[in-house]
Amino acid sequence: MTSVVETLSAPTEPACVPATLRIGQLGLGNVGSALARLTASAGERLHPHGIAPVTTVALVRSLSRPRPAAAWVGRVTDDPEVFFAQPLDLVVEVIGGVEPAHSFVRRALDRGIPVVTANKSLVAAHGETLSALARRRGTALRYEASCIAGVPFLGTFERRPLASRVHGLTAILNGTSNAILSAVAAGASFQEALDDAQRRGLAEPDPSADVSGRDAAEKLTLLIRRFGQRLIDVDRLRTEGITALDSIDVRAARALGGALKPVAHASWNTGALQAFVGPAFLSDAHPLARVSGVTNGIVLDAPLGRQCYTGPGAGPDVTAVTLLDDLCELAGERHVRTPAPIEAAPASPRWTLETPWFIRLSGNPPALDTSELLGTYRIWCRQLLPVEGRLYALTFPATPDRIKAGIDAVHAATGSWPLALPALPAEDDAC
Amino acid sequence: MTSVVETLSAPTEPACVPATLRIGQLGLGNVGSALARLTASAGERLHPHGIAPVTTVALVRSLSRPRPAAAWVGRVTDDPEVFFAQPLDLVVEVIGGVEPAHSFVRRALDRGIPVVTANKSLVAAHGETLSALARRRGTALRYEASCIAGVPFLGTFERRPLASRVHGLTAILNGTSNAILSAVAAGASFQEALDDAQRRGLAEPDPSADVSGRDAAEKLTLLIRRFGQRLIDVDRLRTEGITALDSIDVRAARALGGALKPVAHASWNTGALQAFVGPAFLSDAHPLARVSGVTNGIVLDAPLGRQCYTGPGAGPDVTAVTLLDDLCELAGERHVRTPAPIEAAPASPRWTLETPWFIRLSGNPPALDTSELLGTYRIWCRQLLPVEGRLYALTFPATPDRIKAGIDAVHAATGSWPLALPALPAEDDAC
Repeated sequence: MTSVVETLSAPTEPACVPATLRIGQLGLGNVGSALARLTASAGERLHPHGIAPVTTVALVRSLSRPRPAAAWVGRVTDDPEVFFAQPLDLVVEVIGGVEPAHSFVRRALDRGIPVVTANKSLVAAHGETLSALARRRGTALRYEASCIAGVPFLGTFERRPLASRVHGLTAILNGTSNAILSAVAAGASFQEALDDAQRRGLAEPDPSADVSGRDAAEKLTLLIRRFGQRLIDVDRLRTEGITALDSIDVRAARALGGALKPVAHASWNTGALQAFVGPAFLSDAHPLARVSGVTNGIVLDAPLGRQCYTGPGAGPDVTAVTLLDDLCELAGERHVRTPAPIEAAPASPRWTLETPWFIRLSGNPPALDTSELLGTYRIWCRQLLPVEGRLYALTFPATPDRIKAGIDAVHAATGSWPLALPALPAEDDAC
Repeated sequence: MTSVVETLSAPTEPACVPATLRIGQLGLGNVGSALARLTASAGERLHPHGIAPVTTVALVRSLSRPRPAAAWVGRVTDDPEVFFAQPLDLVVEVIGGVEPAHSFVRRALDRGIPVVTANKSLVAAHGETLSALARRRGTALRYEASCIAGVPFLGTFERRPLASRVHGLTAILNGTSNAILSAVAAGASFQEALDDAQRRGLAEPDPSADVSGRDAAEKLTLLIRRFGQRLIDVDRLRTEGITALDSIDVRAARALGGALKPVAHASWNTGALQAFVGPAFLSDAHPLARVSGVTNGIVLDAPLGRQCYTGPGAGPDVTAVTLLDDLCELAGERHVRTPAPIEAAPASPRWTLETPWFIRLSGNPPALDTSELLGTYRIWCRQLLPVEGRLYALTFPATPDRIKAGIDAVHAATGSWPLALPALPAEDDAC
């Protein structure tokens, strides 16, 4: 070691002058403002990577709104022609939603300009077509920030072909839903929790995409494409929201040794794609059972074992960090890394797997009779627990079809709808 | 979208012929055999990345030992001169230990050949010097597999300058220790658990580096270098093994709402480097409290929130996958990505932080008196619990110095040594 130190004692490394990277930014809202500020304030952290990022131009919908972030941008315009007339090395899309983001991103890729986006709706709807366009034009599309924005993992697996052999995944992808269920578990009512999430800026003024599961379904669509090599239509995903739950359900889950979490799940180890989005019961031993508040997480089931990644799911500052890191990565790649196209026709996700179920039984006749009625549909309760005037059950594994038949029968007999949520196994039993 | 599909309906992508990548493999033991087999069997998964890996030559200590893996290697030699006379595009080091691995890796880097290694002892002892040599020669050194082999994260953060702003970390880095404590928690004796780990091939025939904490200390050394930008000498890390624990301690931790885990911890948010390796009490709310068996994990404390990564920690197949993925990544980089050198002089890690403590009180006089004695050292017990004839305590925060003084006093008074383990906070309280 000493001799090496001596050899190196007079380093002859050339001084590295970072090259200006001219960024065109589509959108200057909450995320866009955070990004423009970060690019201006932290851009020098990219200098050792050879890059000096500059936000040359930002395209906005309306120039009349005051935008403090304009101070960090060379030029703000509401004219797409002006935007695309600038010489740009890279485009970052932070408009959100499918249109007009889609048209602008296509236009950039079509001109060979690499694009970084945080837009899960766009990637869910058009990710494969946009990737194909990027490949054809010899450029790249990156979207690390579109799913669990504060945890870099999509790009990691994209460039690691062996680790990315994954046969299923379970994830908490929506911070608002998770924060609401966590607050309810801590004693708040559902409405209080939602109000609080909105006050804290977690939930949108219209939180329907969050609590309905739509946001998570879009993110699951892109995860299935990346890890499962399957194209699906987000509208064909079995998607349930968290609005059917109440605080007693949440406490009952705790009493049964687990938690109710807003989950997105998919597996393809048997060939057919199984997937659903909705609240599920996770036993305390599940790696995601204690992922609370706005933290998101993903469990990847691989032949050599489970991996779990958790961290901040969203927020302007978290998203801006990931967008700028994506940009830095892109500039450091020797050849354009665009995943191979998916040859197969779009897949139809189903949800027919046998799992245990978390069931809420209530109403008349007495709930114990109800559990007997379920037994006639071969739904056997492994654990029964009375909680605050209701009866809750954890069942032995049953298919969703059988559960639906049993639930319908209970409804016919009692007039009340039992709640039935899948209970996902704490271990990957496909290995 | 339709029009884009039409535009792309006759793809004109050129057929991509992957380039042969000639690998020289240093070592053909357990990991080396798994790697040679994987390279032969799964190498075609790297073709879409432009690479066709071939194990051209393997260097072994002795040719007399039968090596089934030789079937997957062009040539096996025990002569370093023969090894280095081959034309090699990349060297993989899987000998383990510091020498002769160090000399061989230096020789490869000095000739401008990139090196991938799984050797945490080598990287802990000489990582910075070897990186400097690689930088000087315009080549790269990668060691993703040296720490939590089954979870890619080191390279991810290396290329993401903003996400890598981390001010502390807590990790479970040694699978053997964790498997032993998990088995003890499940009812085995310490010796049974160790025997079982050895039977299952988890522990080395000489497991001292695992149970003494040395293995974890080496890994923490490289993590502090990468995330904390500080060079330390592994011998200066406060390092404790798990051998002082018994099964009653483990059950007592469970009764106090947590678990004893073999932890490596470091933080530098106050400027000074704080670090220790050893068993610690993690409350159930800590992200690593349920990381069990051979699973490893790391929590990174960053300004925008905690991230947690868990997965398989070691094993020949897991390590081989990560080595081959590293090799694929290396071949896809535009410029050599070698982290900037660390300018600072070697740091002296200390462990002076105030934390709560998990304390075992036993012997005579009665333990309640003992806790009063601790009180005279301003060590206040928040929770006291008798477990199987002993008394266990969780204290309010106290510095290690104060704990040591109190422990010494208890020893002087009773003749028995209390056990004192830090209880790490479930949340990052530096944010």
